[in-house]
Amino acid sequence: MERLPVAIIGASGYTGAELIRILLEHPRVRLTGLYARKHAGEKVADDFPQLAGRVDGEYLHYSADHVARNSKVAFLALPHGESVPTAKELIARGLLVLDLSADFRLKSAEVYAQWYGAHAAPELLSEARYALVERHRHAFRDARLVAVPGCYPTATLLALAPLLDAKLISHEGIVVDAKSGVTGAGRTPTQGVHFSEIGEGIRGYKIAEHRHTPEIEQELSLACGREVRLTFTPHLVPMSRGILATCYATPTDGTRTRAHYLDALRAAYAKEPFVSVTERAPDTTHVRGSNRVHVSVFVDARAGKVIAVGAIDNLVKGAAGQAVQCLNAIAGWPETEGLGGTAIFP
Amino acid sequence: MERLPVAIIGASGYTGAELIRILLEHPRVRLTGLYARKHAGEKVADDFPQLAGRVDGEYLHYSADHVARNSKVAFLALPHGESVPTAKELIARGLLVLDLSADFRLKSAEVYAQWYGAHAAPELLSEARYALVERHRHAFRDARLVAVPGCYPTATLLALAPLLDAKLISHEGIVVDAKSGVTGAGRTPTQGVHFSEIGEGIRGYKIAEHRHTPEIEQELSLACGREVRLTFTPHLVPMSRGILATCYATPTDGTRTRAHYLDALRAAYAKEPFVSVTERAPDTTHVRGSNRVHVSVFVDARAGKVIAVGAIDNLVKGAAGQAVQCLNAIAGWPETEGLGGTAIFP
Amino acid sequence: MERLPVAIIGASGYTGAELIRILLEHPRVRLTGLYARKHAGEKVADDFPQLAGRVDGEYLHYSADHVARNSKVAFLALPHGESVPTAKELIARGLLVLDLSADFRLKSAEVYAQWYGAHAAPELLSEARYALVERHRHAFRDARLVAVPGCYPTATLLALAPLLDAKLISHEGIVVDAKSGVTGAGRTPTQGVHFSEIGEGIRGYKIAEHRHTPEIEQELSLACGREVRLTFTPHLVPMSRGILATCYATPTDGTRTRAHYLDALRAAYAKEPFVSVTERAPDTTHVRGSNRVHVSVFVDARAGKVIAVGAIDNLVKGAAGQAVQCLNAIAGWPETEGLGGTAIFP
Amino acid sequence: MERLPVAIIGASGYTGAELIRILLEHPRVRLTGLYARKHAGEKVADDFPQLAGRVDGEYLHYSADHVARNSKVAFLALPHGESVPTAKELIARGLLVLDLSADFRLKSAEVYAQWYGAHAAPELLSEARYALVERHRHAFRDARLVAVPGCYPTATLLALAPLLDAKLISHEGIVVDAKSGVTGAGRTPTQGVHFSEIGEGIRGYKIAEHRHTPEIEQELSLACGREVRLTFTPHLVPMSRGILATCYATPTDGTRTRAHYLDALRAAYAKEPFVSVTERAPDTTHVRGSNRVHVSVFVDARAGKVIAVGAIDNLVKGAAGQAVQCLNAIAGWPETEGLGGTAIFP
Repeated sequence: MERLPVAIIGASGYTGAELIRILLEHPRVRLTGLYARKHAGEKVADDFPQLAGRVDGEYLHYSADHVARNSKVAFLALPHGESVPTAKELIARGLLVLDLSADFRLKSAEVYAQWYGAHAAPELLSEARYALVERHRHAFRDARLVAVPGCYPTATLLALAPLLDAKLISHEGIVVDAKSGVTGAGRTPTQGVHFSEIGEGIRGYKIAEHRHTPEIEQELSLACGREVRLTFTPHLVPMSRGILATCYATPTDGTRTRAHYLDALRAAYAKEPFVSVTERAPDTTHVRGSNRVHVSVFVDARAGKVIAVGAIDNLVKGAAGQAVQCLNAIAGWPETEGLGGTAIFP
Repeated sequence: MERLPVAIIGASGYTGAELIRILLEHPRVRLTGLYARKHAGEKVADDFPQLAGRVDGEYLHYSADHVARNSKVAFLALPHGESVPTAKELIARGLLVLDLSADFRLKSAEVYAQWYGAHAAPELLSEARYALVERHRHAFRDARLVAVPGCYPTATLLALAPLLDAKLISHEGIVVDAKSGVTGAGRTPTQGVHFSEIGEGIRGYKIAEHRHTPEIEQELSLACGREVRLTFTPHLVPMSRGILATCYATPTDGTRTRAHYLDALRAAYAKEPFVSVTERAPDTTHVRGSNRVHVSVFVDARAGKVIAVGAIDNLVKGAAGQAVQCLNAIAGWPETEGLGGTAIFP
Repeated sequence: MERLPVAIIGASGYTGAELIRILLEHPRVRLTGLYARKHAGEKVADDFPQLAGRVDGEYLHYSADHVARNSKVAFLALPHGESVPTAKELIARGLLVLDLSADFRLKSAEVYAQWYGAHAAPELLSEARYALVERHRHAFRDARLVAVPGCYPTATLLALAPLLDAKLISHEGIVVDAKSGVTGAGRTPTQGVHFSEIGEGIRGYKIAEHRHTPEIEQELSLACGREVRLTFTPHLVPMSRGILATCYATPTDGTRTRAHYLDALRAAYAKEPFVSVTERAPDTTHVRGSNRVHVSVFVDARAGKVIAVGAIDNLVKGAAGQAVQCLNAIAGWPETEGLGGTAIFP
Repeated sequence: MERLPVAIIGASGYTGAELIRILLEHPRVRLTGLYARKHAGEKVADDFPQLAGRVDGEYLHYSADHVARNSKVAFLALPHGESVPTAKELIARGLLVLDLSADFRLKSAEVYAQWYGAHAAPELLSEARYALVERHRHAFRDARLVAVPGCYPTATLLALAPLLDAKLISHEGIVVDAKSGVTGAGRTPTQGVHFSEIGEGIRGYKIAEHRHTPEIEQELSLACGREVRLTFTPHLVPMSRGILATCYATPTDGTRTRAHYLDALRAAYAKEPFVSVTERAPDTTHVRGSNRVHVSVFVDARAGKVIAVGAIDNLVKGAAGQAVQCLNAIAGWPETEGLGGTAIFP
């Protein structure tokens, strides 16, 4: 079997490293190039010592032509804004582009502008397909440009959307309180991610203004056919990996028991290879290092709330793993190809 | 100046140890006895090596008469249920009792019964004074039995109550998403607090059924004169100390800006020695090891929510420090006596 | 290709869980049974939630006959002492036994007795083959009973032994200062592994009396043909996984430069699939979750010391991964089969 | 009582923050100014939010004249090299200078040059007094310029020196394997202290070339009257604070038991207010946030080694606390003044 040649653009960040880790083991692809602008020419294993003995070469200097000569698929693990021109020129050269940034996730250029400023290529927004695989499996098979969902939206949507689909919760008044490991803040060293300042405490950040909010709203609005406005608060937790989304919603019928909601999740995910509906409270520890998702739901009958909880590894199901799952789906391979591993616990 | 003789009953837990730490430095008290049932006879510094060179003696076997002979004040750091008989017999002997358990925090025996089972001495519930000092300073000065607030309620109430007092938020639909360090789970080793199972992940627990819920509801109901029912979800975070309460409420007037809410907090705490209203998101790291409280408030105008956030050290302001602050208030000493220290950061 | 049927005896500990994780992905084996005494009858995924959606069944009640009916290979992940009778009866039934305990690692019943008490089946000690694959690859191919090396010895021996082989360091005066993640202490919850007591500090333990000492001495003695006596001090570090062994030795020729020692390591490991000789100081973070080994060596010319450093994941190369590597070697499969993955970093 | 006016030069680092924390509570001093070059003009509590409600002002722009007008004592918490000119001009203005950098710790300008490059004011080296209080209490009372010991040397010397004083160990072949919390690396954010890269692993650094080596050697040489050359290896541990020094030495008489060595430590520290000799292995958790020191010693009779272990908080006894202890000693105050607190455990 000939392996599919794939490139990673922006390989020197944490998402890039995770793509390398996964794709090195993927039985149907071949890594053709690791591109990194600032680090071009540097030995990959010097930058990422975990790759010693695994990756011998250097980061390559990116050019669209260079990528196009060697690869048929490009994963973009670039900072916000940098994906637009890159995607554009790679698509033009016939590559399948899987973008892990936020550049193509919003369908509305207007909403995009409110959160990020004017979009540099709004015409691509309709071209791009948002690909939370469990929900859009049949809608992006023919895509040239895939918008891989954000980490917070993935954890949130997988917990909440089936309840909204089934009209078990109201589309109004939803609150999402999310907790992320520190890799979510990226690889650039800053005061805020210095071990001494985050290693033994917890804090919220970008409260009421995090850019993943419109992405969650867009997808939940699609689920219920009404415009969803919700509050989203992310927190930084002293752990490397993991996202826990604790989502509060109002039940449409306050008399339903927990079993009813659990059943809705179970029905939604009965055939999903990566999602487990658990009775116990999801714990990021139990999905770490894997593409797996743990979701559960609780009922607070006293206060009239439904609490849906999702746990993922932000770098796997929240980024690199989901991107590979997208590729598997598009290529017609089993979705678990190269992604079968169990979480690293403990 | 003669020092006030005080005893700690239940000294071998984390709250007990924190009381020892604080009271050893308190300039107006004298520690007369460290009582611990199971550990009686054991050298304190063998059980708590941080006390080597600081505490020479052994845990004492508890008897009410023994305590009464040596002490005028007793701090009870006992498990739920054990405080009732202890408090009863110590009050009868004329001691001032500061109880750090949940035994006397609820005013209603009926509500208590719903969450804990029948109360063993309901007649004491009216005797006890709930003492969140910033809110009840003038209401427990003559108490014989003080119910020191729980850790979660302290962080939550200090963030939310002034907004409810000022009628800035609705009493309906409040959601409290709280995050605690692992000391909050107590000293008994269990699977759930094994480093390997909690050290690098986060999870919720007792979702929609944590016993601090009615305590928070009781106090918020008092603040607004209406019955408050809210949803409270605690989480365990891989850090030793700290509680962060992220509280979501609906504004009574959606046009108010953040400054309006911040001003309400600043007005409430203008003269408080321990509370700081911060513009940045409160971080448990910045209060660790101190009796200090950081609160802030954010507005999500889009989604119509006010987000109030409180950060404390669960063992200090959430337990031992607050208990000492209560004693200071009752004794007529400066409230900061023995509690003046800055947080240990980093 | 028919898969080899293998069983895990003692599946409910951390080593058992790691064997499950690895063997589930191994393309040439089939997990036939997960045996656990105390937990027999319990759903595996209730005990290890990371296995939700991956392992459906229950822990089985162990009997040698039951194992023998279904399996050809048994991995024993049992506490010290329990492997002896189990191995004995499984060998008698024709199984290949890979034992991950310390029961069969020492060749001398006398030395065993000094550290553990009398051995229950000394006749098996000569039957057992100690299998640090990189060193004994050709010596255990026909074994029926394999003693999988301990975690500390693996990290230590891989760093030190090639230097002793090459007579670059003296066999006298060696000091090994080792640091382990908390999973090394096992799954039983104790005060010492409570997050609150180990999560933000470091301490040594079993100083000068840890039972891995004679195992290291035995193997280094074999390397140099002289009796090695060394000092071994383990420490517990607030991390789940990883062992770092910092090994101090005296050079036989004080004029050699670092390059000389690095070359010796590189020569020893030139063809090893799992070992990387690094210039930078090895870091457990870079091998976590993988069977990989990072070793390096430094020279302190001023003080006349050579410092060899090894880093492994204690649960993989220090336990389950190495056991599978042994099986691969015995079965004649590529040693990396099922073990190819890169470390989970960050 | 009039308080002594003291200034902190370099207040915006971790050591500066720790000096602020301690000096704010010190009953005999008054903080007159917090100087910070880059941060001058910035609100202190914006930079260090733990000081909200505690410190209202801004960092001051440093000038020697400004300091001299307001203060009699200056603590220098400056990077290596910057203390020399600062100390020089402050001494010239009659201030007592306590320097926490490495600029004045070595007595020999020649040794200094080997490790740091040429000293900018070698004439001050004889002026400066090295002040590990427990060892030099009577030698720096009249100093104008105090060199506060380094963090690693403090932990190492307090564990080892009494054994060398008592001629119980040889001065040859000493190995010091030290482990530090991440605050030891300073406040500047770098890749190496990014939570994601150090938060769940351990690594050595500057192996055989750390600049604290000559400081330890200088002091041990003084203890035994012979030139000591030793190997020193520091490691970075995922914790904020703490240093554990595990020190290996050869006994001068191999027949002595552990009690003999413990007695030597106990004799040395019988009257010391901050040092506890423990039977259990010292643990940084038990000294965290305090000026306390835990030391112990173990014997490996088999291998002929004595293992002395010291634990301190690197920011307190290893920096700010020790500096204040020096001031207390010079001022003739009780050494524990302002430093009496127990460790923050857990």
